Amino acid sequence: MEKDKDRGITVSKQKDMPEWYSQVIIKGELADYSQVKGCIVIRPYGYSIWQKITDYFNERLKCLNVKNAYFPLLIPEEFFKREAEHARGFSPEVAWIESKDDKAKYALRPTSETIMYDAYSRWIRSWRDLPLRINQWCNIIRWEVKDVKPFIRSREFLWQEGHCVYEYEEQCDREALMILDEYKKLAMDLLAVPVLIGIKTDKEKFAGAQHTYTIESFMPDGKALQLATSHNLGQGFAKAFNIRYVDRDKQNKIPWQNSWGFSTRLIGALVLMHGDDKGLVIPPKIAPIQVVIVPIIFEDSKKRVIEEAKKIKKMLKDYNVELDLREEYSAGWKFNEWEMKGVPIRLEIGPKDIKKKNVILVRRDNSKKQPVKIKDLKKKIQKALDEMQKDLYDKADKLLRSSINKTNDWNEFLKIINNKKIALAPFCGKIECEELIKEKTSATSRCIPFEQPKVIGKCVHCGNTGRYVVFFSKNY
Amino acid sequence: MEKDKDRGITVSKQKDMPEWYSQVIIKGELADYSQVKGCIVIRPYGYSIWQKITDYFNERLKCLNVKNAYFPLLIPEEFFKREAEHARGFSPEVAWIESKDDKAKYALRPTSETIMYDAYSRWIRSWRDLPLRINQWCNIIRWEVKDVKPFIRSREFLWQEGHCVYEYEEQCDREALMILDEYKKLAMDLLAVPVLIGIKTDKEKFAGAQHTYTIESFMPDGKALQLATSHNLGQGFAKAFNIRYVDRDKQNKIPWQNSWGFSTRLIGALVLMHGDDKGLVIPPKIAPIQVVIVPIIFEDSKKRVIEEAKKIKKMLKDYNVELDLREEYSAGWKFNEWEMKGVPIRLEIGPKDIKKKNVILVRRDNSKKQPVKIKDLKKKIQKALDEMQKDLYDKADKLLRSSINKTNDWNEFLKIINNKKIALAPFCGKIECEELIKEKTSATSRCIPFEQPKVIGKCVHCGNTGRYVVFFSKNY
Repeated sequence: MEKDKDRGITVSKQKDMPEWYSQVIIKGELADYSQVKGCIVIRPYGYSIWQKITDYFNERLKCLNVKNAYFPLLIPEEFFKREAEHARGFSPEVAWIESKDDKAKYALRPTSETIMYDAYSRWIRSWRDLPLRINQWCNIIRWEVKDVKPFIRSREFLWQEGHCVYEYEEQCDREALMILDEYKKLAMDLLAVPVLIGIKTDKEKFAGAQHTYTIESFMPDGKALQLATSHNLGQGFAKAFNIRYVDRDKQNKIPWQNSWGFSTRLIGALVLMHGDDKGLVIPPKIAPIQVVIVPIIFEDSKKRVIEEAKKIKKMLKDYNVELDLREEYSAGWKFNEWEMKGVPIRLEIGPKDIKKKNVILVRRDNSKKQPVKIKDLKKKIQKALDEMQKDLYDKADKLLRSSINKTNDWNEFLKIINNKKIALAPFCGKIECEELIKEKTSATSRCIPFEQPKVIGKCVHCGNTGRYVVFFSKNY
Repeated sequence: MEKDKDRGITVSKQKDMPEWYSQVIIKGELADYSQVKGCIVIRPYGYSIWQKITDYFNERLKCLNVKNAYFPLLIPEEFFKREAEHARGFSPEVAWIESKDDKAKYALRPTSETIMYDAYSRWIRSWRDLPLRINQWCNIIRWEVKDVKPFIRSREFLWQEGHCVYEYEEQCDREALMILDEYKKLAMDLLAVPVLIGIKTDKEKFAGAQHTYTIESFMPDGKALQLATSHNLGQGFAKAFNIRYVDRDKQNKIPWQNSWGFSTRLIGALVLMHGDDKGLVIPPKIAPIQVVIVPIIFEDSKKRVIEEAKKIKKMLKDYNVELDLREEYSAGWKFNEWEMKGVPIRLEIGPKDIKKKNVILVRRDNSKKQPVKIKDLKKKIQKALDEMQKDLYDKADKLLRSSINKTNDWNEFLKIINNKKIALAPFCGKIECEELIKEKTSATSRCIPFEQPKVIGKCVHCGNTGRYVVFFSKNY
């Protein structure tokens, strides 16, 4: 039955991570390339991971009093020009469409600040209307993308974007940070991906923001991947879009705003982080299928084995369980397939196991086989899922921690970056200096950590006074 | 405090339904017009209705083994041309965008058959891959729209589109009908909107379909509104997109396909159907807020009343309950606001009620006030919600049934259509004949009901042999 010899992953993750990633995504059926340049199709298996993320985050949004809404895909050209920095930052990547009837020019949204804040300027009248907290789940178009990398970088992707308005500057910043904390929890607890958190440098902050908070992950090939950002927008957009409110003292005032988002890139991060040479490894908490039951079929015991397998499926109804009863494939073929798809736990059950009232439990990440009494199965499954979730995180966290190298010496800095590690170094904060660092090393600043040493020292590159220590590394 | 005298709805539904509709949508905060011609913003209150519909339908899709996925917004021009009828049908409403880098022309999806079936042609290899059942939730662009009517007709809207592939023609048609039945249940049970069900005539069927099944509602202003359709696509698209599978006998075969969808138009339907001169009336099962508690505040009893109101909110935690504690508005102002927003049940609680261990329960649809013992409240709320849901449906159903008039006489047909009723009349089935009927009366065929009389009689318009009896009416 094993006809398709190249069904499995044919390159090692360590040797050729780009090719490995592409194979894992395609063969694991998370996504497919499409005939539209730079765009991908998110297949059902990949989309169900996205759905788990959106379900989780919608629950969090409810707790945070953020409401979902939907704004137009098309953004009038004139809106885009109102906030100058924003327009400059996004102009290279905007796709434009011209209306046949009125010759109006519209952008396909690369982000929705402008179209949303135009509406906000009509909706917000009084202090009673604040805080206004709205989120949108939608598709985004950024046309600049040349080399598509499914989930990591493509011309169209899905995301959420939250856009809130406040009376008080302090509340605005506090909630921008609160959302960053939500993002950190999502990455760590759900995706088992540890992150660096901090503030973006002036060069890397969002176009139009006062400052940008970020969570940054670090992949096994030595490149950082930005996972989510939360922007304190100050009053710039409010001024540009004429958002005003009448305060308790009857005065017209300008409110404060933040915006924040993550995208389907999160799926790419968990694949890059946890996958291995056999394929995907999906953290239990986010796995569309958490347990697969593969019955070992022999003609004479077939009926009993299948019966028992069905019983076990019923017993595990609290989990996402797949019972693989396909007759046209061998057990070995099925093992490979479910390993490639990254299902956290495989249960094997054959006639010998039944005699011993056992099943064989196999964890995807460490391949350890463990006989388990059927009566203990529910407890053992939960334990195995919990342990796997934790082990995946710990492994990733070890990688991250061991990759960070403090330095204030330029030659050492070069060595760290060349070795594909993270340098934590004092930096002057100047955009021109950062541009030179990128030119010379291809490293970019990832973030300014919140915790800073008392003494910063001199900028690792230009030797001027350091403003803060900053994480630098190569990135996706 | 009642400053905004024109806050309420200022026209009667019966006298000027278009203006009434617009006011109810805007003042009820379901949606807003946008600066993008023909496009609306779905505000949080409107979006939460859509979320309830999508949550409900996602549960149904799970039971039907349909999986969600996501395909590109942009569709290559060449794809569109492959199925000739489909291309002809959609060409007037497609918005095109040209890529700067490769001069490729793309349509913003007006529907996704073509981009999805191109992918299907790569994914489907063997009978083992069938049936393939995929659904997509996404935004749709149809540029032809001139007079935007929020939710009913706009250049961009949200929808679901299911696209399935089968080995057997019979299964393909059976499941297309099964979905129609799901749509009927959604409209009837959730939205309290009764429907006519049947098949579209050749003139009205989907471009590229073998035949189209439909559910049609009938609004209080005497116009039909198509709510959802399910298309048996036959093998036309499979041939055009070269979808083939190897059957058990090793032969290459052409599969059968169906596609089906409903959109945010459903929100428009429930608003038109149930609203009244005070504003929205939202059926309990779909209401974002099912119960609003308005405490009647006097300075001396304020503390106790608020305490009791909070207790009641806690007691009703199984429902979506809003406790309106805003101090800057009077109780009367709040009553008007929540009536405009169509909340099914209002609970009033004041010091006198507390003394009697009562609250006052007011149903939105019939304004009946009823004192209820607090200890019985949970039971009574459920009863009131159930009764209101049923009463709304019954009222709408009575309207629908009483609007249908059988006729086989052309003059009578004219009278029925002029009276804004539904004519059930024998029809020859010819496209040209139907076009003439539309020209002369502005009525269109809504559907061919599944149940047909034994003897049809002659076509009500041309006098030739009737093929079936058909529902005709004006429509949105």
